Parts: sequence; structure tokens; C-alpha cells
Amino acid sequence: MSTRIVIIGGVAAGPKTACRVKRLLPEAQVTIIDQDTLISYGGCGIPYYVSGDVSDEQELRATSFHMVRDERFFHDAKGVETLTATCATAIDRKQKEVLVRNVTTGKEDRIPYDKLVLATGSRPNVLPIPGTDLQGVFVISDMHQAIAIKARLAKGEVGKAVVIGGGAIGIEMAEAFTDLWGVETTLIEFMDQLLPNLLDRPFAGMLAQHMRDKGVTIYTGEGAQRLEAGDQGQVCRVVTAKRTLDADLVVMAAGVRPRDELARSAGLLVGPRGGIVVNNRLQTSDPDIYAAGDCVEVTSLVSGRKCYAPLGSIANRQGRVVADNLAGIFSTFEGVVGSFIMKAFEVCVGATGLTLDSARREGFDAAAVITAQSDRAHFFPQQAIMPLQMVFDRRSRRVLGVQGFGPMGDGVLARIDAAAALLSKGGTIDDFSKLEMAYAPPFSTALDALNATANVADNLAAGRLRYCSIDDFQAWMRDAAVAPDWMALDVRHPKEVQPFLDTYGDRWLSIPYDQVRSRYREIPAGKQLIIICDACTRSYEIQSFLDSVGCTNTLGLGGGFNVIRRLKPDWWPK
Amino acid sequence: MSTRIVIIGGVAAGPKTACRVKRLLPEAQVTIIDQDTLISYGGCGIPYYVSGDVSDEQELRATSFHMVRDERFFHDAKGVETLTATCATAIDRKQKEVLVRNVTTGKEDRIPYDKLVLATGSRPNVLPIPGTDLQGVFVISDMHQAIAIKARLAKGEVGKAVVIGGGAIGIEMAEAFTDLWGVETTLIEFMDQLLPNLLDRPFAGMLAQHMRDKGVTIYTGEGAQRLEAGDQGQVCRVVTAKRTLDADLVVMAAGVRPRDELARSAGLLVGPRGGIVVNNRLQTSDPDIYAAGDCVEVTSLVSGRKCYAPLGSIANRQGRVVADNLAGIFSTFEGVVGSFIMKAFEVCVGATGLTLDSARREGFDAAAVITAQSDRAHFFPQQAIMPLQMVFDRRSRRVLGVQGFGPMGDGVLARIDAAAALLSKGGTIDDFSKLEMAYAPPFSTALDALNATANVADNLAAGRLRYCSIDDFQAWMRDAAVAPDWMALDVRHPKEVQPFLDTYGDRWLSIPYDQVRSRYREIPAGKQLIIICDACTRSYEIQSFLDSVGCTNTLGLGGGFNVIRRLKPDWWPK
Repeated sequence: MSTRIVIIGGVAAGPKTACRVKRLLPEAQVTIIDQDTLISYGGCGIPYYVSGDVSDEQELRATSFHMVRDERFFHDAKGVETLTATCATAIDRKQKEVLVRNVTTGKEDRIPYDKLVLATGSRPNVLPIPGTDLQGVFVISDMHQAIAIKARLAKGEVGKAVVIGGGAIGIEMAEAFTDLWGVETTLIEFMDQLLPNLLDRPFAGMLAQHMRDKGVTIYTGEGAQRLEAGDQGQVCRVVTAKRTLDADLVVMAAGVRPRDELARSAGLLVGPRGGIVVNNRLQTSDPDIYAAGDCVEVTSLVSGRKCYAPLGSIANRQGRVVADNLAGIFSTFEGVVGSFIMKAFEVCVGATGLTLDSARREGFDAAAVITAQSDRAHFFPQQAIMPLQMVFDRRSRRVLGVQGFGPMGDGVLARIDAAAALLSKGGTIDDFSKLEMAYAPPFSTALDALNATANVADNLAAGRLRYCSIDDFQAWMRDAAVAPDWMALDVRHPKEVQPFLDTYGDRWLSIPYDQVRSRYREIPAGKQLIIICDACTRSYEIQSFLDSVGCTNTLGLGGGFNVIRRLKPDWWPK
Repeated sequence: MSTRIVIIGGVAAGPKTACRVKRLLPEAQVTIIDQDTLISYGGCGIPYYVSGDVSDEQELRATSFHMVRDERFFHDAKGVETLTATCATAIDRKQKEVLVRNVTTGKEDRIPYDKLVLATGSRPNVLPIPGTDLQGVFVISDMHQAIAIKARLAKGEVGKAVVIGGGAIGIEMAEAFTDLWGVETTLIEFMDQLLPNLLDRPFAGMLAQHMRDKGVTIYTGEGAQRLEAGDQGQVCRVVTAKRTLDADLVVMAAGVRPRDELARSAGLLVGPRGGIVVNNRLQTSDPDIYAAGDCVEVTSLVSGRKCYAPLGSIANRQGRVVADNLAGIFSTFEGVVGSFIMKAFEVCVGATGLTLDSARREGFDAAAVITAQSDRAHFFPQQAIMPLQMVFDRRSRRVLGVQGFGPMGDGVLARIDAAAALLSKGGTIDDFSKLEMAYAPPFSTALDALNATANVADNLAAGRLRYCSIDDFQAWMRDAAVAPDWMALDVRHPKEVQPFLDTYGDRWLSIPYDQVRSRYREIPAGKQLIIICDACTRSYEIQSFLDSVGCTNTLGLGGGFNVIRRLKPDWWPK
């Protein structure tokens, strides 16, 4: 008899495993079980379906050659059976059977397996506050929720929306509401920045500022305390500690957690923070049961620690590894570097590896540099500034993470993907410095922005550059009490400097970059000097010159005013 | 006395070395010598200056903060002295002096050095044919040539142009002439494809076809035999073995070779094919003399062999390494992977590592796969097909090269840069398969096109996929004499297949992808079957199924019709 492979979960890792294993073992009997009727959809596309970029939900379930991936498709094209509307209720590991119940008829059954694959995915967190069960409160858990949200938008029933959660889905939903439906949208995030753990503050700040410019109201450091109903029992208000927000629709996008209950109740090993424990071949603690996708815990290739990476891209990679092992092809999934990218209105933000904060929490002797250089030749018409951050370990010089921000397009993607490739190989600052980014003026600069960022990191790591972070600089600008006796040496063009001289004349000195060598004697002695330029490159050069003439109490401003300008701080001269 | 560092060459590697070493050793006396008066320009920007994308030549010599990099700039801002219009005629290694002659006054002088850096660059090849010295014949060697070409275009003196050489500069110049000046432009290339050694035929073919669509006439396999003058002594014709082309202007873009004469006559070691020999710290055979940029030979990190990589991006990386070593910081330049990207009208083509042809010449047991998948989620409005090729070694499964083609933008760049990063670390097919490309629908697919290409390579390398190359398939379509007794199994939508059935009914069979499992018995026995889809993914699946039912004489068509469509072959049904 042919091998019976049963797969629980029909969204990403499940179908990927099923189709690949069927190609490798055409004789195998492959069955996917899913409690839903809509399967194998691109869940990451939901915000684009809601926004209207994608007009029909079927497109999210279609192949690139426009066939809808339904039960018939899996049967005819893939030779894979699907049991939809079928809930797996338990695993009988002794008998090697999955207990199922038809969610429509209630009929129960037992499905025998030789090998079982758990691809049970994740479930959205529901906040432990009153009102989350009100009508008009949604989580982005499946296509049905997406269809319901879009129907309400299309009927014109939503004038005001509140999105709870400043992660990727929350941000994408806020964009969808605002940009294409003109809904007055507020996004609240409990932590003090958007995308916590994915970005450090300057990058989250540039993103938040852009979203505000596009009309989204954002409150960080503020959690929802309760959701209140109107007369019809429909949600109508979100209450935080600081304010009450009117809302015709609320999206709770407060993260997800692994759906690991089935594994847990079958006695399989589950991680301390949730997520099925698997080995590098993605076997669970029962060697006949594999697991993949949002339901498993993974290892960070950067920190070496267990983590959770619920992403469709990871699920697909893991599905292939499971299929290979089911077919007797040795294949491993060693872990994730943590690559991430997203669009928000007209900008894009991406990252890979660890943030500075998380690197420090992991015990690295971590530091970071930010540059803000051109994404392509500065003389090429479409060039734009693309701030990049590199997080590294001072001792080993290993790069721990890279973040990028830029205009919408694939410019940030190119740097993040290249960085992810080197991170996966334990790349050092020197690897990044010499990485051969492809060069032509319409695409990059002779020394790519990523190389240049590594060069700044090299200078910092080697003690050749002394550096003031944007966070520190902002704190000094805002509150003289926390600042030392400091002065800005602004080497930009005098026209750019003038508004700062007008506002902060007593602590602002303008000496253009090309005049410092002849005019450095004008610098008052005894003060901490912050050298300011746009991108944190001229400031390093000036610092090195000033050192040589004995003026050593200087710090270069990381990222420069190209970053701070994008944060639109309250102290910026009008 | 402070160290005297003399640098010969003021375009890319020279200024980079000068500025970096001055930052590291502020006390050093750093002098750049250049025979030209225009220095430190972005030579790769010349085609964009000629086209008008860049309006003023000064922009190519300006910093990102809009200062022109002239002698005054280097003195004031960088503390670096420049001797322009000064030709270095010899090196007296015993006395440690450079002999120079002022090209305007003829005055000779000797410049003492403690450390010398050769950054003498490259010179364009001048074809050994009559007429290359006629008025109106240009090489793209420096800014003066570019300024003269643009002046002629602006005066309306150029109705027809011929570009000799189908390398990057030739292609970019052909675009500049055609696209922005409406010049009737012909490009001739001696080899049988554009960009020989940088791309394999399918990718060069897609590029050539796009350029033809945009109005450039291209003749490959055809060299210029002589240039002929009109009445005024101005060039007016280019004669090849096959035709005579009228030309008001001729650009010779037949490659460059290292300017290594100065090194050679000073007794420094020079490679057998030209290029100064340097160690990994970029020291020449005289440890007090370094060399960097287009004048040195480099090592291919993929093949391990010496090669030549005259690129501004490499020059800048090398300049930094030289500066570090001059300052006592140990730093190495190990070699190049060979990253390359270029724009041509509305498309972009890029590559890294070796082509299939060059990999075979280097003795690898090389094979290649081509896929043609979406660059971003297929449901995302801006998605486009992005053919990718992966060249790999069958035995070691090491990836040797990647090529990409797509619409203008940074999508190809992202894949090439990520590939270059892994190539620099000896990445295998499996590394590419699992490479964590950042995913969101506006940027990529859950399994990125680069991952998917690696997966096809994996299947081919493991013997699970049998494959027909595009070149072979085209030969079979064109000439039945070279073809076996074959038949196409076209699994695309019947509407797409109909024109092929109409034209090639006797050897074309249409069974839609999702019907093969139920209709495979219609396939006639005894014939070699080529399975055709758009991207080379469905064809693999069908092959694996057909194997399981005993129909094993099949080959999948590499790249699929998404690639062949872009080649517009003569046999394509109207």
C-alpha cells in the first residue's frame, strides 16, 4: 500500500508540503485537512485585498497562471486530496490516526496516517479587555474576516476606524483604510514605537512620521483598555488611558501566537513560549510527525536563540524541507535571520537580523551606525536618500542586523536581501564593506550605501569615529538638563544652517565643510562639539581632521540631518 | 618629516585612496597626479550625461552635497594636493621619485615619494582598422570626449550613429543616442551576442530584442572592417563584411585594457594579459608601491583565476584597502565575484559570477537552469515576469553565477546583490534555496524567484528534473534535421496554445496542466516529449507525474515561454 501522508492545515506550509511531496513520491496518498473552506491563500495579501489593490479575493487563492487553488484544483492538478470544513480534534499517535469532525455536519471520523504533518498556523491574539467580541471588531485571521471588512468599507459603513497594534498588519490595514477608502484612521500601539523588535526607534520614527503625513493618527505608548458598543450593539468607541476614540470599525492586530494545542494535547514537545519544538529536519518529538509554518518555534541564526517567525515565506521554505524529508531526501531548516520588509504609503521599510535593542538584550556588545546616503548615483534623476542602520558586535565585528528606509520601490529590498545573505553566513563588517553590490548609476553608487554603512561601522568599531546617536542628540535638543555643555558644528551649506543659527544661535556654529581646515580656530574651546552633516560622512572626516589639530572633544551625529529631518522633531526650526 | 604619499591617477581609485589615507593619517602629505584637468568624475555616468539625463558635466564631478571635485576642493576640503595636467612619465624606484611633465608647458619635474600608488586606470581599445582617427570617431575615455559628443548632438549634427561594441558602454551609448536624441543608431558587435562573457545567450537575446523594439538596429557576429571619410574628412561610413552603414558619428566601445605601461617600464610585475600584479594588500612587486583600480589584475572569487574587472565600484573598494594598508591597518582585497547591472531603455539586466559558457571554459561540470517567475506577488498590480538563471557545478552543487532580466527598477538588483553576497561565501544551491529574501507582496513572492530558481537547480542537480535548454529548443524549432523525433506537450491554457496548434499541429499537443492526470493516455508513445509551460515550474510537476505512469521520455523546457516570448523568435506564430 502507498504511504499515507496527512497534513493538518491548508494555508501555506501545508499545501507546499503536499505538492512537493506528491512530486517526489507520486505514489503517495496525500491528504490536507483544514477546518476552513477557503484554503491555500496568500494571507499577506489581505491588506491589499482590503485596500482594493487586489480586486477579488480569488486572486489571493490563485496561481500565477490564474487557476483558483480550491479542492478541485488540488485534486486535478496536484493529485492531492483535501478535506475542508474539517476540524482535526485530536491525534491518536498509537493508532496513527487523526480524529476529525466535519464543522458543518458534526460527523466525526478517524483518518489513518503513516506520516503526519502539522501546519496548523497561528491565531491572532485577542486582547484581554472588554468588548473584543462586539460586532465590528475584527482580527485578520482568515479570508472571511477580510471579506467582511471589505464589504463594510464598500457599503460606506466605515467613517472612522481604529487599528490596535503597530505591527506590520496593523500598519498595512491603516494604510488600506486611509489611502483607498478615505477612512479617518487611528492606530494605537502599546509599546513606545511602531514595529517594536523589528526596528529601532529612528527607523520606526521615520515610518510613523510618514504615516502621519499621509493622514493616519498614531498614538504610541498607549493601549486599548476597552471597546464600547453603541445603541445597536456595534462597536463605536475605543477607550485608552488618555482618550476615547470613535470607531465604526476596529481591527485588532496585536500579534499572533502559534496554534499548537493539537500538538500539545497529543503529548508533543512545545516550547516554553509556545510553538511546536522541531529538530532541524522539522520532525517533532514524534519522528513520524513533522511540523512547519507558524505553529513551530525556530532558531535565530544570529542570536542562536529560539524565536518565533510567523511568515508565509518561512512557512514555504519549511514546507519544502518537510516534503524532502518525507521523501527520504535529507534536508534541513537551520533557522531564520529575520528578514522583513513592508510598504507604507509611499515609503518602504525593511530589516534583517537583530535590532540594536534586541542585540543588547541578547548579550552582545552591540553598537549601531546610521548613514543616510543616496540609493543610486546622486546625479541620476530618480535618486533618493536611503537611511541604513548597521548593528554589529564590537568585539567580533560580526554584523547582527541591518535596517533600511526609503521611497517605495525595491532599493531597500536589495540592501536587506544582500545583508540577509551575509548574515546567514555570519558576515562581519569587513564582509559588508567589500560586498560586491552591482553598480551602475541608475541602480546604486560606486560604493553602495550598504558598503558605506559598513565603512562607518568599521570606523566606529576601530575607535576611529566617535559617535552621537540620534536618540541622544534629540534628548539633548529637547532638554538642556540632560545635555553636557555642547555646541553644534554644522558643516552643511550656510543656507541650510541659517534657520538653526536663527533659532539656536548660542549653541550653533556654521563652518562649511570645505572651510574647516582654514577656520577651525573659530571653534570655542572647552565644549563638547557635535559635528553635523546630512549623512554622517562629512562629520567623520571633520572629526578626524580636528583630532589632528588637537580639538578632540567631538562627536559625529549618526545618520545626520537626513534622518532627523524625516523625524520632523518638535525642535526643528520652522 | 611627514610621510609623502604620491598617487598617480585622479579618477576613482586615486581620489578614494587619497581622501581615506588623509583621514587616517592627517599628517601625511598626499598628492594626486593626473594628466587631465578634469578629475574625480563618475565615468559610469557619461552615457547619462550624453543622453541628457544629467544636464551638466559638473554633476558627474560633484559630491552628493553639490561641491565640484576640482583642485581647489581637494585642497580645501580634503587637504590633498593635486597636480593636474601633469603626466607621470617614469618612476625612479631607487630614488623613490616620480618623473612628471606638465602637459601644457612641457616643464619636467621629479616628485619624491615615500609610498606610491598607481591608479592609472584603463584605456579604450582602438580597433586595428583604417579610419579610427577620423573626425567624428570617439572613444569613451574621458569627460572631454563625452563633452564633444554631446556638443555635436546638441547642434543637431548627428542624424545617424554607429556604435561599435556591444558591451555595457556601447549599449548605454546606443540608448542615449536613440532615446533622447532620436538618432538613428546601429550597434555592431563582433561576437554573436551582446555582453559576451557577462550574459549567456538567452539573456543577451532578451536584451537585444528589447533594444530592437526601441529602435536600435543591432548586428551581432559582425565587426567593423574600416571607417570611411566623407568630403570634409569627417567619418561618414562604417564598413563590415556584410554591409556599409552611414554614420555621422561613430563610437568605438570595444572594451578597455589596463594602463600598465608606467608600471611595466618601472620593472613592476605585470600579468600575462596585462594588469599590474598585486598581492591581497594591493602591493605591487615593489612593497612601497601599491596599485588599485582599472590598472590591476584581480582574482575571480568564483573560479580562483586571474581576471580583469574595470569597474568604478571595484576601484573604490580597492582604494579604501590601499589607504588602510598605507596607514598601517591590515586590510585585504581578495577578489571579485563579478557583479554587473545595467539599464537599457525600459529593462534592466544584471549578473554576478560566471556565465554558463565561462564556467565550462573554467573546467566546472557546469549546468544552468532558467526560470521566469513574478518579481512580486502575482496578485500585486505592479508585478512583472523576471527571468533568472542559475549556473552551478553539478558535483559540488556550488552556485557559480546568477543572471537576471526584468523591467527597469531595482527588482533584478535585489536578486543579483543577494546572489553576489552568497557567491562571495561559496554558497551552494541549498544556501540559495533557503536564503531568507525579505517578503511582502509589494516586493517579492513568499518563495522568492531566486529561491525558486535554486529549487529548480536542486531538482536538476539531483537528477529529478530532465531539462531542455532554450538554445536547444530553438535549434529544434528552426531545423528539423538537428532535432529528434519530438513533440511538444503544451500545458498552458488552451487559448494560449491555439496559435501553436494552428501552425505546428503535427508536433504540438495541448493538454491543460490540470487535466494531465486524467488525459495522459492521449500522449502518443515513442516520441521525445518537450513539456512546455511559461516558467518551467508546471513542466517539472508534469514530468514527475508522467514518470510515475511510465512516460519517461520527456524534457521540461527551461525558462518556458515567458523567456522565449521575449526573444521573439522567427518561428513564433503570428
